[in-house]
Amino acid sequence: MKLLIIGSGAAGSTAAQLARKTNMKAEITVLGKESYSEYSKCGLPYVIGGIIPSFDDLIEFPMSWFQHFQINLRLENEVYDIDPERKIAKSMSLKEGKKEEYQYDALIIATGASPWVPKAEGAFSKGGRLREGVFVLRTMDDARQILKRVEKGKKAMIVGSGSIGMEIAEALSRKGMEVYASELKAYMLPSTMDEDMAAIIERRAEEHDIHFIPRVTVSEIGDREKVKYVVLRNVDTKEDSVYPADLIIICVGNKARVEVAEKAKCRIGSTGGIVIDEKCRTSVEDIYAAGDCTEYLDFVTGKQRPIGLGSIGVKQGRVAGVNSVGGEEEMARGILNNRTTELFGLQISAVGPTMMELEKAGIGLVVGKFSGTTLPHYFPGAKVITVKVMADSRDGKIIAAQIVGEEDVHQRINVFATAILKGMTLEDFMQLETCYAPPAAPTLDCMTLAVDVALTRWRRER
Amino acid sequence: MKLLIIGSGAAGSTAAQLARKTNMKAEITVLGKESYSEYSKCGLPYVIGGIIPSFDDLIEFPMSWFQHFQINLRLENEVYDIDPERKIAKSMSLKEGKKEEYQYDALIIATGASPWVPKAEGAFSKGGRLREGVFVLRTMDDARQILKRVEKGKKAMIVGSGSIGMEIAEALSRKGMEVYASELKAYMLPSTMDEDMAAIIERRAEEHDIHFIPRVTVSEIGDREKVKYVVLRNVDTKEDSVYPADLIIICVGNKARVEVAEKAKCRIGSTGGIVIDEKCRTSVEDIYAAGDCTEYLDFVTGKQRPIGLGSIGVKQGRVAGVNSVGGEEEMARGILNNRTTELFGLQISAVGPTMMELEKAGIGLVVGKFSGTTLPHYFPGAKVITVKVMADSRDGKIIAAQIVGEEDVHQRINVFATAILKGMTLEDFMQLETCYAPPAAPTLDCMTLAVDVALTRWRRER
Repeated sequence: MKLLIIGSGAAGSTAAQLARKTNMKAEITVLGKESYSEYSKCGLPYVIGGIIPSFDDLIEFPMSWFQHFQINLRLENEVYDIDPERKIAKSMSLKEGKKEEYQYDALIIATGASPWVPKAEGAFSKGGRLREGVFVLRTMDDARQILKRVEKGKKAMIVGSGSIGMEIAEALSRKGMEVYASELKAYMLPSTMDEDMAAIIERRAEEHDIHFIPRVTVSEIGDREKVKYVVLRNVDTKEDSVYPADLIIICVGNKARVEVAEKAKCRIGSTGGIVIDEKCRTSVEDIYAAGDCTEYLDFVTGKQRPIGLGSIGVKQGRVAGVNSVGGEEEMARGILNNRTTELFGLQISAVGPTMMELEKAGIGLVVGKFSGTTLPHYFPGAKVITVKVMADSRDGKIIAAQIVGEEDVHQRINVFATAILKGMTLEDFMQLETCYAPPAAPTLDCMTLAVDVALTRWRRER
Repeated sequence: MKLLIIGSGAAGSTAAQLARKTNMKAEITVLGKESYSEYSKCGLPYVIGGIIPSFDDLIEFPMSWFQHFQINLRLENEVYDIDPERKIAKSMSLKEGKKEEYQYDALIIATGASPWVPKAEGAFSKGGRLREGVFVLRTMDDARQILKRVEKGKKAMIVGSGSIGMEIAEALSRKGMEVYASELKAYMLPSTMDEDMAAIIERRAEEHDIHFIPRVTVSEIGDREKVKYVVLRNVDTKEDSVYPADLIIICVGNKARVEVAEKAKCRIGSTGGIVIDEKCRTSVEDIYAAGDCTEYLDFVTGKQRPIGLGSIGVKQGRVAGVNSVGGEEEMARGILNNRTTELFGLQISAVGPTMMELEKAGIGLVVGKFSGTTLPHYFPGAKVITVKVMADSRDGKIIAAQIVGEEDVHQRINVFATAILKGMTLEDFMQLETCYAPPAAPTLDCMTLAVDVALTRWRRER
């Protein structure tokens, strides 16, 4: 059988890997648009910041890996049409403009997403490209261009204070730039954290000399006597403020790349992504999809949610790869959206919808929050850690959690992810034994204590 | 109502705390045998090793805390009899020998455990006390005595290589002593880890100049021309070897202190502890028990298991405290035995029975093991981490896990603890989203990869 995979990113390459593991005989072809073999997009800010020495280090599946597993990888090759009746994909090599046709028995679409750019005056040059000095960060080429512009003492404006925006903000700050970060919402990392938890991160960012500007949109980007500037408009007062900036990076989110899927008549969902089921099947027979070009149900709210996490892309790639060549593997009934980052020495993790999303979905909440330490108070080196847990007020089931602290944050969020996946209630969680030893964790973990706060509140309000 | 608690350790003091939280009017009295207010027993090796500056730092519930919550704490006070019909406990003050009677409505027995000492020739002096230079480590007084004997360049023999034994071994090694650790079983930490996982720790201990002597019992302790020595007998060859030792510490385990419970006619179980139910009730009405003096079911095997973990003592104390004064709280149906320690820079955690225990219980196993890194390969500073997961071969349910590595071990074991508590199968676990970011964790976590190994094996063998 012939498996064709469009997209050589994390989802596409993982799909190829699992397809090969599942079916040793399948003919597997991967078509990639970029000129690099699969690399970690999430690693790009760390090369810019100088923590990872070179872009080459980010390659995860090198060409030799594809060769070893007899997977035919074609780079700089863009698919422009699909005929789902005849099961043919039409592609063009980007260098030579040569057109080719690929016959498939199963097709996996893993075309990813492109950065969204707000329609600010002056953001684009006449040719439709971003104005000189204005960047997005999605590909290795984007990052290479940005790195060329990094210069100590100069000013950078990051538009959008999500995880990627703040990761670049920190990277540029490490490189000695004066960094401004603007945000439409009232607080930093609004898709990751609630306002109260974000406040901890904002304080830390301020200590690292990041200038955070909330509640603004970009109304204009321009040059005046060779000095670039950004005009930010306050969404409440409608007042404009002008900020000079030598480097401007737009990080306001991504939109699923679904042009190819649309040609194949795959159903596109309410958030703009390809609709898939728990086996990563699209609405069209023998066509699967995985990664940032898809949308899937939120585990808690049951509503469609775009994919924006590498870990989910890899999980979907795995499921699509296995199923496309005759194996069987299923995803959970929804996405937990288990997300994490590190900024300015703070570990930041969250799982499940934010309070804002939960309120929008009409889910009544009981919340518990606890600030404790990662070790018993008597053990030297204990760090402060703040845990927030949210449960459904109807049944006491844990549905979301957020944690911020200097250590041992990430794996604690995985505990809550497990709890949510298995429908654990606050009462169930109180029965969980957590590990304890003086150099490891306190007898009563900060997770347990946050749950205890929520449980006490829930019992009182019932 | 009058609540009497016998024992002022972690279980007893936590019971007092939760009883007070549950019932503001109860008259609560705690009788403690030692002369210190509640302190962390698990912290003692770290004071000996000089990591925690002073024994005073270990006090967790100081006298003032008891006063603040109007809990009557009487120290140096030993209960020698109970009349469960008349609901009276009889005690004697250890300093003055004064006898007193305490009337109770509810009683919580939290008398803890005492170290077990093997009947080696010469271990005891004529008065029945341990020979000079031979110690156990259970109380603060034990630790104070040991600390006085610590001397750089001198030799120490640790009998028993469990967690406490090895924690002291490391402490003495830090203080410049030459440390020997002997063990009845063939490998280190046999109650915590399986042989293959223990091998990683043994190598590390060796690098830190710990002399590990497996498969031996102590056959004699003595003095010869003012030089103390220990004779170790190999259990296979029956050969004796003589080791000179300036300091000998016996760490071969504990036995539940149940004398008082026996007086009250509480049922004692097969492992020698007080039998309790999920509400911490003993077999006698209005008498509860908590902590190391009890035994409880193992969550996986369903067999009785002694308690030896502070975290479980605290959990039981909580449940006993709440229920004893009219509240309602239940433990899980069994103990997960979530245990952890740190030795020589290695984090060591496990949950569920060891392979040896599982085999003894006749549970068929499928095992997955994976050595990976805590971060993606391209991110600087990633550490090696080894994860072993065990599932029941009948239904694929995860029942045990062990992890060793330099970082991010402890909270990963809590993920497996959650999985076991909620009956998660290997297939369920593959659906779990784990958090990912380059400075936090790889896209596919080492836990997921260990589970994947087990799942592949399980599917093949079915």
